[in-house]
Amino acid sequence: MSEKVIGIMGGMGPEAGADLFLRITAATQAKTDTDHLHIILDSNPKMPSRQDAILNGGESPVPAMVATAENLVKAGADVIIIGANTAHYFYDDVAAAVGVPFLHIIDEAVRETVRQAPGIRKVGVMATTAAMQAHVYEKSCAKFGIEVMGVPDDVQAQMQDAIFHHDFGFKYNGRTEACVEAARSVAQYLIDNGAEALIMGCTEIPLILGSTSFPVPLIDPNEIIAEAAVKYAKG
Amino acid sequence: MSEKVIGIMGGMGPEAGADLFLRITAATQAKTDTDHLHIILDSNPKMPSRQDAILNGGESPVPAMVATAENLVKAGADVIIIGANTAHYFYDDVAAAVGVPFLHIIDEAVRETVRQAPGIRKVGVMATTAAMQAHVYEKSCAKFGIEVMGVPDDVQAQMQDAIFHHDFGFKYNGRTEACVEAARSVAQYLIDNGAEALIMGCTEIPLILGSTSFPVPLIDPNEIIAEAAVKYAKG
Repeated sequence: MSEKVIGIMGGMGPEAGADLFLRITAATQAKTDTDHLHIILDSNPKMPSRQDAILNGGESPVPAMVATAENLVKAGADVIIIGANTAHYFYDDVAAAVGVPFLHIIDEAVRETVRQAPGIRKVGVMATTAAMQAHVYEKSCAKFGIEVMGVPDDVQAQMQDAIFHHDFGFKYNGRTEACVEAARSVAQYLIDNGAEALIMGCTEIPLILGSTSFPVPLIDPNEIIAEAAVKYAKG
Repeated sequence: MSEKVIGIMGGMGPEAGADLFLRITAATQAKTDTDHLHIILDSNPKMPSRQDAILNGGESPVPAMVATAENLVKAGADVIIIGANTAHYFYDDVAAAVGVPFLHIIDEAVRETVRQAPGIRKVGVMATTAAMQAHVYEKSCAKFGIEVMGVPDDVQAQMQDAIFHHDFGFKYNGRTEACVEAARSVAQYLIDNGAEALIMGCTEIPLILGSTSFPVPLIDPNEIIAEAAVKYAKG
């Protein structure tokens, strides 16, 4: 068996890690159970808040992330994926401390963006405020010479509300009309202001937008990383 | 942290383990990510076929199941759930070989059946042919003095088709009208012949039947084990 065992560092939140697991399963060409890949998901929701560490200089989650990665290696993982976009802020520190390769969700998403929109200069990123302030997309985009569009505070607030608003946000209310409308209007703002592609930088956004179609490529990082993971694992 | 870490032995098939993971997440009262439980899912679809071992005396999956359980313990699991109904055929051998407690999906489902239908004598079980022939339900039901109804071959064939038929079965075609109809007609047969409750003994069946209502209690073992797991982990 030359297939590699995939380790997913989950729990940030729990649904995002499970989403990644199911995407990898769906991306695998499998006629029977045994055609599927061996995947280990360590969903540890007890790690220090990534948002708090990024925004307020709170306790670093790096030691807990390293411990979780080492756990996955102990259980047999040959390659690790950090199952959350924002947490990629800590990617370099965590990957450097662990003795197996990591796949990088954001880099893979940006690579796919360039493939779908050759020559792209400006990309729109839809993500939580903490993820935007973590500049994880900027860092990956810079490697490809792409600029991440600035988003005015009121538009970013709409994005945040679509996900977190207590009365209509997706996290607490499911797919309400108001959250769909808020997310669509963020997408429209980005397109109107020159975005040549849109990256959905938060697990909830594909669920909110559903099958809405836009005049520019719409990139779902979990979908892209799932395909990359299958390719990597199958060698 | 006195909360216990839950280990799920998954991969039999991959979606069933992920379903159990998501059920446990949904059953957890959580206001923020950190309120969620630490769960490790080892989805190893490379284990020898349980069906082949049960029906044809093929290679035993017990060594691979024990290895997977030990992997989970190495990664920190305090309690283990075998994430597949049929595989509970091997429960005693696997649980005896591993040094942490196991939760038993079928026992928990039967316990809940008795709670919802006090005094019950006859239960109908909807499951794959291999699961029926493994007699895992009979064994658990016998502990509670309940009889599992016999199912004639043509009715059992309808059940199997609802899940596995190439042209309309759920596994290959999603929720087709024909698979819903086949599953409903099995349920109806069981009720007409004296079932005082129905156990959906296969992960696909709740997805096929959806919100159909029946005049007897309808038991979803993954739902029951998820609640039992949360209770156990929270002590």
